[in-house]
Amino acid sequence: MSLLLLGRWAEGEQQAWLQALQAAMPGEQWLLETPRTAAEAATVEAAIVANPPHGSLQGLPNLRLIQSVWAGVDKLLGDPTLPAEVPLARMVDPAMNEAMVHTALWAVLGLHRGFFRLQAQQREALWRPLPQLRAQEWSVLVLGLGELGGRVAMALAAQGYAVSGWSRSPRRLDGVHCCHGEAGLAEAMAGADTLINLLPLTPQTQGFFDAPHLAACKPGAGLVNLARGAHVDEAALLAALDSGQIGHALLDVFAVEPLPPTHRFWSHPRVTVLPHTAAQTDARSAALVVAENLAALRRGAPLQHLVARTRGY
Amino acid sequence: MSLLLLGRWAEGEQQAWLQALQAAMPGEQWLLETPRTAAEAATVEAAIVANPPHGSLQGLPNLRLIQSVWAGVDKLLGDPTLPAEVPLARMVDPAMNEAMVHTALWAVLGLHRGFFRLQAQQREALWRPLPQLRAQEWSVLVLGLGELGGRVAMALAAQGYAVSGWSRSPRRLDGVHCCHGEAGLAEAMAGADTLINLLPLTPQTQGFFDAPHLAACKPGAGLVNLARGAHVDEAALLAALDSGQIGHALLDVFAVEPLPPTHRFWSHPRVTVLPHTAAQTDARSAALVVAENLAALRRGAPLQHLVARTRGY
Repeated sequence: MSLLLLGRWAEGEQQAWLQALQAAMPGEQWLLETPRTAAEAATVEAAIVANPPHGSLQGLPNLRLIQSVWAGVDKLLGDPTLPAEVPLARMVDPAMNEAMVHTALWAVLGLHRGFFRLQAQQREALWRPLPQLRAQEWSVLVLGLGELGGRVAMALAAQGYAVSGWSRSPRRLDGVHCCHGEAGLAEAMAGADTLINLLPLTPQTQGFFDAPHLAACKPGAGLVNLARGAHVDEAALLAALDSGQIGHALLDVFAVEPLPPTHRFWSHPRVTVLPHTAAQTDARSAALVVAENLAALRRGAPLQHLVARTRGY
Repeated sequence: MSLLLLGRWAEGEQQAWLQALQAAMPGEQWLLETPRTAAEAATVEAAIVANPPHGSLQGLPNLRLIQSVWAGVDKLLGDPTLPAEVPLARMVDPAMNEAMVHTALWAVLGLHRGFFRLQAQQREALWRPLPQLRAQEWSVLVLGLGELGGRVAMALAAQGYAVSGWSRSPRRLDGVHCCHGEAGLAEAMAGADTLINLLPLTPQTQGFFDAPHLAACKPGAGLVNLARGAHVDEAALLAALDSGQIGHALLDVFAVEPLPPTHRFWSHPRVTVLPHTAAQTDARSAALVVAENLAALRRGAPLQHLVARTRGY
C-alpha cells in the first residue's frame, strides 16, 4: 500500500512536506504524483493533500482517507469529483493554532492600544500619546468559534479583554460571552470595538462583511479578517474605511491573492495588509497529526477532525 | 491633617488625579500646591507626587509617606532635598502592569512573526510571506526582573516563548531561565532573538546599551526599550541598526522627550517609535493603591512598594 502526497505547491514545498512526513511515519511508500496505472492507483490507501487539482482524487479504489494539510477545506470541497464516501479530515495543527492566536493577539493589541495609529504618527514625526484603556474596557467579538476561533477567543479573554463569540450553533467557552444565530448577531456586532473573522467559508458566510453588516458595527470599529477573502465585500469595506465607519482593518486574506499591486488596501492609511501569513501550517507538527490519523485509520479507531461535507467545514 | 498632591502635570492631569483620589479616599483634606505657611505645612501627613519640582517636599515636619504615582522614581531620587527619613513608595499599578505586559507582547509578536517587516513590505505593495517559527524557537531576554520585568517575562513564557531573565541579584520566576550578575550577562545577551529592557535607571545601568553591549547581542537581534532613554547610547544604537547588528528597535523612551522632530529614529525603516506610552499609570486603579498604602500607614501596617534609596529603585 502507499500514501499519495498531492497538492499545488510553492517551490520546494512538496519536498519539505515529504521530509516531515517521512520523519513522522518512517517506512511508508510514497507516491508524489497522480498514479499512472490502475495497479498503482489500487495501492493508494490515503491521500495527503494540499488543494490538489480537481479530479486528481478520482479512480483510487482503495482510498480510505483524504487528509488535508490545510485547515480550510473550502477549495477541496469545490471539487465535484471528490469521492463522497471517503472520510475527509482537515488539519488541526498545534503550530498553526498558536500562530493564529498570536496574530489575533497582535492585531487586537495594536487596535486596543493604538499602536497602529502611533505607527502612522511616526511617519509624520508626531509625538502624541493616546489615552490608555484597560483590556476589560475593550470588547472583542470573535465570529466563528471553531478550532481556531475558540482558541483565539479564550486567549483574548485570558489577556483581560471583554470577549464575545458568535457561531452558527451554540457554543460554550470559558470566559467568553457566546451567542449564536441571527438573533444574537446584531447586538454582538454593535457592541464590539474589534471584530475578528474566523468563520468557515460556506455559501452562507460568503460576503458576510457586506455594506449592511459593516454598517451594523460600532462606528470606528476595527475589523480583523483572518479567515477568507471571500467573506468580505472589498468595495463595501473600502467605503466603510473611507467614511470612518470602520476605523482600521487588518486583512490577511483577499478576494484575489497575491493582492494586486494597485489595490487600494496596500496604500490605505488605516489598513494593515498581511500576505496570508496569519497562521501557516507547520509541516513538522502537522506531519505528526497526519501520522496519528493514519494510525487511527489502521487500527479502526475514530478519525480526528473529520469534515461534515454538508456543513462545509 | 491633609494630603499634599504635587507634580509636574500636563493640562488637566492634576484634576484627574484629584478626582480619582477623592473617589478612592472620600473625606480627606487636599492641598494642591506647596504649603505657604508653617502651620499649613505642619498639616501634611502624606505627599502624593508626580515628579514635583526639586525642593518642594522640604519643610513638612509631619510628613510620614511620600507616595509616587509613577513607577520610576529616578527623577524623584535626583532631588537632594528629598527628606531622607520619610518612607518613599513607588507606584505599582495593576493597570500599568497590564499595559506594560501588553506592549512587550505586541513588540515581541511583531519581531517574532515578522509583522514589522511585513508592514515595511506593505509600503512597497510587496506580497512576500516570511517563514513562521514556533514561539518556543524564539528566545527573549528580559533585562530587569522587578515588578514589571518579572511580569513581562512570565507573560511571554505563557505565550510559549523561550524566556530568559537577567537581574542584578538572583531571582526565580516560573518558566523563566533566570541569571544574574556580570557572569550570566554575556551568554544571555548572545542567545537572545529579542531583548527587552526593563532595568531600573541607576548610575550602574545608565548607558547600558552602549557599543560593546550592542555588539555582544546576537546579530540581527531586536531591542525593545520600555524603561528609560538614558539606558541607551542612541548614537551607538543607530550605528548598530545601520550595520544590521540590531535588526529592529522598538523604543518607547528617549534621551530627549518628546523625541525631536529631526531625530533619525523617526524615519529609520527599522525603528518603531512609541511616544512614552508603553504603560501609563491609570489614575483610577493607582488611586486605590495610594488609598491602601495610606490606610496601612495609619494603622501601622507595613507599607507596600517602598524604594530602597541606596539601591535606587
